[in-house]
Amino acid sequence: MGLLLLKYMLKYQPLDLAFQALGDPTRRALVERLAGGPASVSELAAPLPMSMPAVMGHLKVLEQSGLVKSEKIGRVRTCRIDPKMLSQAEQWVAERRVLWERNLDRLGQFLDEENI
Amino acid sequence: MGLLLLKYMLKYQPLDLAFQALGDPTRRALVERLAGGPASVSELAAPLPMSMPAVMGHLKVLEQSGLVKSEKIGRVRTCRIDPKMLSQAEQWVAERRVLWERNLDRLGQFLDEENI
Repeated sequence: MGLLLLKYMLKYQPLDLAFQALGDPTRRALVERLAGGPASVSELAAPLPMSMPAVMGHLKVLEQSGLVKSEKIGRVRTCRIDPKMLSQAEQWVAERRVLWERNLDRLGQFLDEENI
Repeated sequence: MGLLLLKYMLKYQPLDLAFQALGDPTRRALVERLAGGPASVSELAAPLPMSMPAVMGHLKVLEQSGLVKSEKIGRVRTCRIDPKMLSQAEQWVAERRVLWERNLDRLGQFLDEENI
């Protein structure tokens, strides 16, 4: 494997997990709910048409990706957004969009200058 | 399945594919390269330490997700970013981050008012 790609893969591993976690509608529904404030696992599971273990599986994927963290106090596990990873994912996409737009501007400028 | 979740899943299907596509370092490298301007499949494959069919597989995932489009002229297939889906993915994450920050502000305000 090329050293550059290896470095790239090692560097961006966390984004893999974050984007993979967001690639599922139930997990996005959980992120959406938690963006409104912390919630217990039972509160998160209540509106979802699936078993508690299924919800916990999705929460585990979200925790492993760094998008969500949780804390157990007594018998209640409370989940909350960990904003760092959400910002990182947003920033990755935003930077590529900006790069793309800048490239498009340059093309437009070139066409203008050349009167094409 | 709950009707609400069904609606949610139908509505957001495209985001599933977009985030899943971004959850891979090679595909992010391809998006990164294409953000700098259109490129042929051979140009995209050249720096990558993998077979042409493997690169084409990744490009197919990117096309199916709507992040990339391609056009074949003569024997050359040229790929470019389709910015709509990139913006949609960015917007989804940005809106949840803003919602989360607004919720945090409200909490801070509450604590201030209550002098906690």
